[in-house]
Amino acid sequence: MRIVIALGGNALLQRGEKPDARPQQANVDRAVKALAPLAEHHEFVLTHGNGPQVGVFALQSANDPNLTEPYPFDTLGAMTQGMIGYWMLQSLQNHLPGRHVASIVNQTLVLAGDPAFQNPTKFVGQVYGEDEAKKLAEERGWAMKADGQYFRRVVGSPKPQRIVETRIIRTLIEAGAVVVCAGGGGIPVIRDERGLRKGVEAVIDKDLTASVLAEAIEADFLMILTDVPAVLDNYGTPEQVEIKRATPAFMRQRGFAAGSMGPKVEAACRFVELTGETAAIGRLEDAEKILYGEAGTIITPGGNYGGPDDIRPPLPEPVETRRIRRA
Amino acid sequence: MRIVIALGGNALLQRGEKPDARPQQANVDRAVKALAPLAEHHEFVLTHGNGPQVGVFALQSANDPNLTEPYPFDTLGAMTQGMIGYWMLQSLQNHLPGRHVASIVNQTLVLAGDPAFQNPTKFVGQVYGEDEAKKLAEERGWAMKADGQYFRRVVGSPKPQRIVETRIIRTLIEAGAVVVCAGGGGIPVIRDERGLRKGVEAVIDKDLTASVLAEAIEADFLMILTDVPAVLDNYGTPEQVEIKRATPAFMRQRGFAAGSMGPKVEAACRFVELTGETAAIGRLEDAEKILYGEAGTIITPGGNYGGPDDIRPPLPEPVETRRIRRA
Repeated sequence: MRIVIALGGNALLQRGEKPDARPQQANVDRAVKALAPLAEHHEFVLTHGNGPQVGVFALQSANDPNLTEPYPFDTLGAMTQGMIGYWMLQSLQNHLPGRHVASIVNQTLVLAGDPAFQNPTKFVGQVYGEDEAKKLAEERGWAMKADGQYFRRVVGSPKPQRIVETRIIRTLIEAGAVVVCAGGGGIPVIRDERGLRKGVEAVIDKDLTASVLAEAIEADFLMILTDVPAVLDNYGTPEQVEIKRATPAFMRQRGFAAGSMGPKVEAACRFVELTGETAAIGRLEDAEKILYGEAGTIITPGGNYGGPDDIRPPLPEPVETRRIRRA
Repeated sequence: MRIVIALGGNALLQRGEKPDARPQQANVDRAVKALAPLAEHHEFVLTHGNGPQVGVFALQSANDPNLTEPYPFDTLGAMTQGMIGYWMLQSLQNHLPGRHVASIVNQTLVLAGDPAFQNPTKFVGQVYGEDEAKKLAEERGWAMKADGQYFRRVVGSPKPQRIVETRIIRTLIEAGAVVVCAGGGGIPVIRDERGLRKGVEAVIDKDLTASVLAEAIEADFLMILTDVPAVLDNYGTPEQVEIKRATPAFMRQRGFAAGSMGPKVEAACRFVELTGETAAIGRLEDAEKILYGEAGTIITPGGNYGGPDDIRPPLPEPVETRRIRRA
């Protein structure tokens, strides 16, 4: 099987944790340890978020007195790909002796005309007072929005259209390598009026990028790993249940919070609808169980599978839920 | 032909220039433009230095009040690989339409017992006063040495032994990709007592790493590009001449400055001696001429070449020089 994993940036740097290198590297090692059994027996592509890390570098860059202007977000994203890509590369090599691992710098093409550029909504970097915010908006052309009583820069979150290095990734997988790529959703680039690639200041949803990637490389399984065991139906009501299995149609009809579970569900559904393969959302620690349909929320096109190669248990339509164990 | 290029970090950020992202990216684009004609017709691997860039990140990290301790040099090196690797990736794609480009995170294995760890000599990061230097030496185990009237941290510069991702690089070349790798001499790693790879705080000479890489992937040509047109013999005397062609034996016998030309000459000679192929040292702008033996210092094993595939002009032994044109 060819598996694509999307791992949240928060799995590497939890809220409240100091953004030091060593604890983050230890978190990467813990994550890779949980994923290694999957990589051992399957073609394996690992992508990751970079939200907390890009924030650290953006702040360092903004506070550097030797710079005329802070580094743009495409370059900051590339720095996080190098850093997290290195930690994952080394850890995968150590946990998978005999396997070759490649960690690549990876761009994601977005459309210059994506409406998200006209309506930027993603807060990035530090907070500023109103006067400074106005000055930065004028001097640097930044879009600024109120965030509580302060102001912060906002950038667009355009839809990922294409993983620029798709052929490189396929070459590496086919050569037997474990591949780390598309970190932070990929470095956002557009094609300019001359057809040349150019970085843009934007933030791409890493789960949507993982979905585009999984589709492009014809993966069999897209696994979106986060810190909750499954997607919840009737969230926050007495009828709240974990969704064990469901079809994309069911998931879409329910609706999930735009800021958190929404994009993950969208990414998973998109992949299943376009490819007829399987996606799942669940906890990092459950990765191996999720693969065998024993944990997380599994999304499949519906109907039962069969055939000698199908390791997945049969699927009742359109949804199967599990009660949440209460402490 | 399979060509390995080693490009100096100073070509991307000149002394006195502000370390902003955009001018560095423009410098990368200029460098790639000069190299593109070579990449168009040959297998092409591009490595680069990172001295100035790693210094910028080290300082930002040391001054970040949110960190308990500055990022270690293996992680800082990985960040520069991501950043410079991204700039080179994008620029190569733009200058070589139709070619696929891969930019990878790359480790270089050094020996834990390398004598350089006992005798660290490479200054890294910012300057400190004597008291603070003593405190840091105690608290963090850093080796500190006087640099003028201040103190700076020193780390070892161990010999590069092996490019960890050699097989990945070979796979990519054989698939027809242009490859960017071994940035900053590669992220320095050792094998610990359990055999696991582990980052170390060290600085690896990028030209020596390029030499080890060129040998490992059986390159035909190692080109070390810097800001001088050729290696000078009788440097600083009235007999000063540019060395046009020479054998490794001749070059070794002359001796060159340890801090600047020495390691480049060593890297070039090592490659020629071990492989019987050709190395050269010269200016970035002359890259295409150097390939055809029309500029730079060309180092070959000696004797004349022949055969239908040999594009190189015959070589007189043991050295051929050219007068330096004076303005």
